[in-house]
Amino acid sequence: MEFLVRTENLLPNDTPDEVRNRLKSGERERAMELRAEGVLKRLWRVPGRNATIGLYEAADSAALHDALVSLPMWKYMDITVEALAAHPQENQQ
Amino acid sequence: MEFLVRTENLLPNDTPDEVRNRLKSGERERAMELRAEGVLKRLWRVPGRNATIGLYEAADSAALHDALVSLPMWKYMDITVEALAAHPQENQQ
Amino acid sequence: MEFLVRTENLLPNDTPDEVRNRLKSGERERAMELRAEGVLKRLWRVPGRNATIGLYEAADSAALHDALVSLPMWKYMDITVEALAAHPQENQQ
Amino acid sequence: MEFLVRTENLLPNDTPDEVRNRLKSGERERAMELRAEGVLKRLWRVPGRNATIGLYEAADSAALHDALVSLPMWKYMDITVEALAAHPQENQQ
Amino acid sequence: MEFLVRTENLLPNDTPDEVRNRLKSGERERAMELRAEGVLKRLWRVPGRNATIGLYEAADSAALHDALVSLPMWKYMDITVEALAAHPQENQQ
Amino acid sequence: MEFLVRTENLLPNDTPDEVRNRLKSGERERAMELRAEGVLKRLWRVPGRNATIGLYEAADSAALHDALVSLPMWKYMDITVEALAAHPQENQQ
Amino acid sequence: MEFLVRTENLLPNDTPDEVRNRLKSGERERAMELRAEGVLKRLWRVPGRNATIGLYEAADSAALHDALVSLPMWKYMDITVEALAAHPQENQQ
Amino acid sequence: MEFLVRTENLLPNDTPDEVRNRLKSGERERAMELRAEGVLKRLWRVPGRNATIGLYEAADSAALHDALVSLPMWKYMDITVEALAAHPQENQQ
Amino acid sequence: MEFLVRTENLLPNDTPDEVRNRLKSGERERAMELRAEGVLKRLWRVPGRNATIGLYEAADSAALHDALVSLPMWKYMDITVEALAAHPQENQQ
Amino acid sequence: MEFLVRTENLLPNDTPDEVRNRLKSGERERAMELRAEGVLKRLWRVPGRNATIGLYEAADSAALHDALVSLPMWKYMDITVEALAAHPQENQQ
Repeated sequence: MEFLVRTENLLPNDTPDEVRNRLKSGERERAMELRAEGVLKRLWRVPGRNATIGLYEAADSAALHDALVSLPMWKYMDITVEALAAHPQENQQ
Repeated sequence: MEFLVRTENLLPNDTPDEVRNRLKSGERERAMELRAEGVLKRLWRVPGRNATIGLYEAADSAALHDALVSLPMWKYMDITVEALAAHPQENQQ
Repeated sequence: MEFLVRTENLLPNDTPDEVRNRLKSGERERAMELRAEGVLKRLWRVPGRNATIGLYEAADSAALHDALVSLPMWKYMDITVEALAAHPQENQQ
Repeated sequence: MEFLVRTENLLPNDTPDEVRNRLKSGERERAMELRAEGVLKRLWRVPGRNATIGLYEAADSAALHDALVSLPMWKYMDITVEALAAHPQENQQ
Repeated sequence: MEFLVRTENLLPNDTPDEVRNRLKSGERERAMELRAEGVLKRLWRVPGRNATIGLYEAADSAALHDALVSLPMWKYMDITVEALAAHPQENQQ
Repeated sequence: MEFLVRTENLLPNDTPDEVRNRLKSGERERAMELRAEGVLKRLWRVPGRNATIGLYEAADSAALHDALVSLPMWKYMDITVEALAAHPQENQQ
Repeated sequence: MEFLVRTENLLPNDTPDEVRNRLKSGERERAMELRAEGVLKRLWRVPGRNATIGLYEAADSAALHDALVSLPMWKYMDITVEALAAHPQENQQ
Repeated sequence: MEFLVRTENLLPNDTPDEVRNRLKSGERERAMELRAEGVLKRLWRVPGRNATIGLYEAADSAALHDALVSLPMWKYMDITVEALAAHPQENQQ
Repeated sequence: MEFLVRTENLLPNDTPDEVRNRLKSGERERAMELRAEGVLKRLWRVPGRNATIGLYEAADSAALHDALVSLPMWKYMDITVEALAAHPQENQQ
Repeated sequence: MEFLVRTENLLPNDTPDEVRNRLKSGERERAMELRAEGVLKRLWRVPGRNATIGLYEAADSAALHDALVSLPMWKYMDITVEALAAHPQENQQ
């Protein structure tokens, strides 16, 4: 089942560079793992913002929640999830 | 996977009684089937409104969508769905 | 009478682990008591967020308020309550 | 238990006077009965609008719903209900 | 003239107990005076929140403003006021 | 006591010219009376819309409500009222 | 450039079946063409609603607008478009 | 003084083609006049919608209002206006 | 040209009295100057809040902006401006 | 492709003047470069606020994002972007 996931990154501006860089590289690393597992399928930036829109696939909401919480930046992010329903037209291709 | 489903019934006030009654009894009948199938688990009224909040369980969003569309009143209802994630505390009981 | 209760946990990110853990274990303990008393009937996570949706039962709004205030995390939570009305269909099962 | 009840009257402007008058007098009559029963405790107009704010008392949300549905104008009204919790200060008077 | 007054108490969580208690007892004392003067007529809690809904009566908005500002907790509260219009039905009782 | 009053004119586009003109001239006439009585103190257009913002003065909300209802266009308007409180700076001039 | 496109289908409930079916089959046919052209890349249903979320790719907003207007159901749909920015992480795969 | 003007065209779908075409050509003609007068400076489409965003220049809000009302489609449009303030950076070019 | 200006004063509660008083007296002084210049025409309090609604007159939005920025409290205020259009009825008096 | 870009400057009030001035001059310098490159085409102030509305042109959303992030004040700004579609009327001039 697929989900549309919006994240707003609220990491404070006065976060030390060392902490910020560690979080960002950890975030990228974990994201690549989620891609490899087929959980994170697409990722976009919201233009102008420190924010993303992602297309995720997970067995259910609880599995998606666990995947999102596993991101090192999670506790600094405001996240909203929207459940998507497969459209029958997709199978007609 | 569970979902919280809100419905607002927008059936026009000038709908003939005969049509309204047929829709309402068909709605009740189909709802009881969804209960028997374990899809509709709880149903509440929003006090003061022709509206409900329901707790549904379905394999995924597409299965939930099919269940909701199967309700005779569907095309007269404004429906919003919120995906729920199982809370680990539930298993500690 | 049943209520739908949404909580957003706003505990600051820089809360010391010791304080956070004490609050979380106290929260879990009190929640289990409320379950045992039949006040907290179901609990879900809002996927992606440090937030929950709960189904509560209490004699009235004041009793519900007292139950929510008794949670150790209460003062760090933004809570909204929605009163639910029993639906006659529930009794037809 | 007390509730704050907002109503917006959406009766169409082209409703025949005879129907409108019958609805209004029926509404007033039923409201006076609800007052006599102690269900409708106070009623205000929202200035400038065909709308009211009422203070109701009922055993629970379902009883309140039944009282509101019993109003002849109900099906033409958009109603929102807010559950109120007794404040301990009230008892100190 | 009557007003519906909503307050959200935003006193910071890290306020010293001594300050908090002094504010709360001062608030209660001033509220009882406003009751005695017929300005504060009813008070409810918003269930689950550190918030209230109050029914006030004052000569006009400016007199209401002065009454609200006289509450010791005022500068920590987010307050919204809604002017109520007397409903002619009230006089029919 | 002064009030800020917003009106959105929702008279249907297919209203016959004769009806529209009668409503508009009646509206203007009644508005001039309210000005003469000191109830309507200022009137502005919301640029681009069939809408106005008005500054009214009335004894209380109920008197304002009666004034607004007395406008022939009232039943076609969506009106919102905001109570204003006199600012002490006004008296320093 | 990619876009997230939300559509709410507002075709009136009383549309004759013949018209509705013609619109739906025309819509499907045009959508398949847009897929073949690489304009419509993914399509989901919003669960419970007669609504979709689509992932589109077009040279710019004007080209996207032309593609959406070419859908036979366009004039019955409320559409909102959100511009997506490519995320550099996508190229790291 | 410049203004940002948003229009949503709400002309009913069942408007006869003859009426629609007359309105559209009249709209285009009047818009070209407003361009020639320097009132309408730029016009964009909101992608996916029958809506526009325009940059207008007028002596003041009342002159802008008159220009917008002079558009034949005006009574079918929902218009919102936002006043822009010249930015000193513009003069540094 | 006239404008409706709303201000919310967000000066932090822990601002030293000396700073607060200096800001307030400077604010009052500058406001009186703006009144003398005919820029600030009316000022109201939003009842219950540290907020005002003002009626301003300025040559255009840029002149209004300069007037508002000249207020010592400006950087602590959240301000929203609404352009008003003169109503022809005003001239009929 | 053109974009409408809104910025709210959230630089804290207690930022040292030296830092603030460096950010502002850097912002102006970078903005003038973006103007020279044809990316920033127009800039307005939102009257009364530390906020701007800008008209930008960029190859796509990603290029716009890079331009906005290159502004020294970027991390202190809340930015929202709206994609504009060229209107065919523009070419008729």
